[in-house]
Amino acid sequence: MEIQEKIAVRAAAAEQEIEKFLPEQKGYAGTLYEAMNYSVRAGGKRLRPILMASCHRLMGGDGKHLAPCMAAIEMIHTYSLVHDDLPAMDNDMLRRGKPTTHAAYGEAMAILAGDGLLNHAFTILGKELISCDEISMKHVARVIAILSEKAGIDGMIGGQTVDVESEKTGSLITKEKLDYIYEKKTACLLEAAMMCGGALAGATEEQLMELCRIAQKVGLAFQIQDDILDVTGDQEVLGKPIGSDEKNEKATYVTYEGIEKAKEDVSRLSEEACGLLDRLCRKDAAAQEEADFLKELFAYLTVRDH
Amino acid sequence: MEIQEKIAVRAAAAEQEIEKFLPEQKGYAGTLYEAMNYSVRAGGKRLRPILMASCHRLMGGDGKHLAPCMAAIEMIHTYSLVHDDLPAMDNDMLRRGKPTTHAAYGEAMAILAGDGLLNHAFTILGKELISCDEISMKHVARVIAILSEKAGIDGMIGGQTVDVESEKTGSLITKEKLDYIYEKKTACLLEAAMMCGGALAGATEEQLMELCRIAQKVGLAFQIQDDILDVTGDQEVLGKPIGSDEKNEKATYVTYEGIEKAKEDVSRLSEEACGLLDRLCRKDAAAQEEADFLKELFAYLTVRDH
Repeated sequence: MEIQEKIAVRAAAAEQEIEKFLPEQKGYAGTLYEAMNYSVRAGGKRLRPILMASCHRLMGGDGKHLAPCMAAIEMIHTYSLVHDDLPAMDNDMLRRGKPTTHAAYGEAMAILAGDGLLNHAFTILGKELISCDEISMKHVARVIAILSEKAGIDGMIGGQTVDVESEKTGSLITKEKLDYIYEKKTACLLEAAMMCGGALAGATEEQLMELCRIAQKVGLAFQIQDDILDVTGDQEVLGKPIGSDEKNEKATYVTYEGIEKAKEDVSRLSEEACGLLDRLCRKDAAAQEEADFLKELFAYLTVRDH
Repeated sequence: MEIQEKIAVRAAAAEQEIEKFLPEQKGYAGTLYEAMNYSVRAGGKRLRPILMASCHRLMGGDGKHLAPCMAAIEMIHTYSLVHDDLPAMDNDMLRRGKPTTHAAYGEAMAILAGDGLLNHAFTILGKELISCDEISMKHVARVIAILSEKAGIDGMIGGQTVDVESEKTGSLITKEKLDYIYEKKTACLLEAAMMCGGALAGATEEQLMELCRIAQKVGLAFQIQDDILDVTGDQEVLGKPIGSDEKNEKATYVTYEGIEKAKEDVSRLSEEACGLLDRLCRKDAAAQEEADFLKELFAYLTVRDH
């Protein structure tokens, strides 16, 4: 099976689990539930739940409490897109070829649906938490601590803030701020996905830090590759216009490091992530299988042409 | 001491605790932290943390893990105000005589600050959770479950959604929807405050349900009194124009029930809340003192002229 196909199979499985945690309509707030479910069902690679489930198996987890955590992280990812697309932010009317949430339901409802999704993620985790036995409770508690921190102001929201502010000032962003945005806006939620999968499997603090480092490298490589493709990509393969960063006078990793160094860095980061993964991986067949999948996935996400 | 004075003393104490959990500036997202702290420091009665702390003592709690939970509920309350004030929602430029968050920091930053506050509430609770011993962990877990549910889509966000939708349609709201908004938008977070205080003190499920019922009655009475004051209030005492509901052709509790029945209901609900409180209260002096404070507070919030 090609990696795209493997991802599609796992994405479909993840969607089936996530679907169970979508809110059921109650009371008079029907449009809110509709807008939330519309946003989550609008598609996407389901990368974060896939990473979470894979790292969970990699670390020997038995799947207990995994599904609600997969749903929670996908809802947090979705809310961040819904709010990012708002007129006051990126003002995007289309995402993956479909009307964005505010385009479909209006701005007020998109704000509320985003709030609803973020809050609902913690409602799902809170319900799971109080149904746990003592050992599981510690694992789910770790998930709540990790996910809330990585999605929060020192994580994803912080990165989004600096990104929004940089776009509004118009002046060239410094290399330090650029690194900050890549790390916080993209890598943090991948880190959370991999760490939460490990935490639910009872991984040690040290193992969680290793998973974090791996995700960080993958996230950074993914972002740099994005910048490279904007310069060298094939518009047909990419499905979007190239050269947009230069046109918008946007400083990127390529601006600061040059195209050759950028390409080298993507390869290096991707290899380093795979190396760390090998060192972390147990020697049994199930873990090896997950490690192989993850390495293919990392290669697909980093050294790519689309 | 007058009740206003008692509230002010307790509010100052609550603010001191909340202040410790405000985010410290890190990285490059300085404006985000500023906007969040601005919103929380903008004032208010700190009613929810006060209710939480009081119910905690009422149920025999020793104050363990209380401060982070007080901070969390105030941050959730604050985020809801920040998002409510946005141009796409109520479009308010002033709150308590100060510029609203979007008026001071722009719309994008207000959306992010609101997201940041909601998320930060759960970061605070998540950090507290993993630092707990086993018994405390169960109590804090209950807090997370209660707070996320009452603040969420079947709670506060649901109420806000129906309120926003009703205002946009222009047609008169039904009595059922009006009840739904009062219950969800206002009462739910008061319920959470009182229940979480009890949960941290190790209250039983039954006791939590009683606290919930009390808060529900107080919240409803508070809302009805608001409607009454809009008809009969003294503009000077109230500090805002009266007759705005009639002017805006807004159906209220008074529209449906008439002014006399509405006044009766406020008294009845307030008395019922106090009755339930007496039945719940332990007989020791500390609990009695809290019960007395709560009864004064309920009277102040419901049968009031301002």
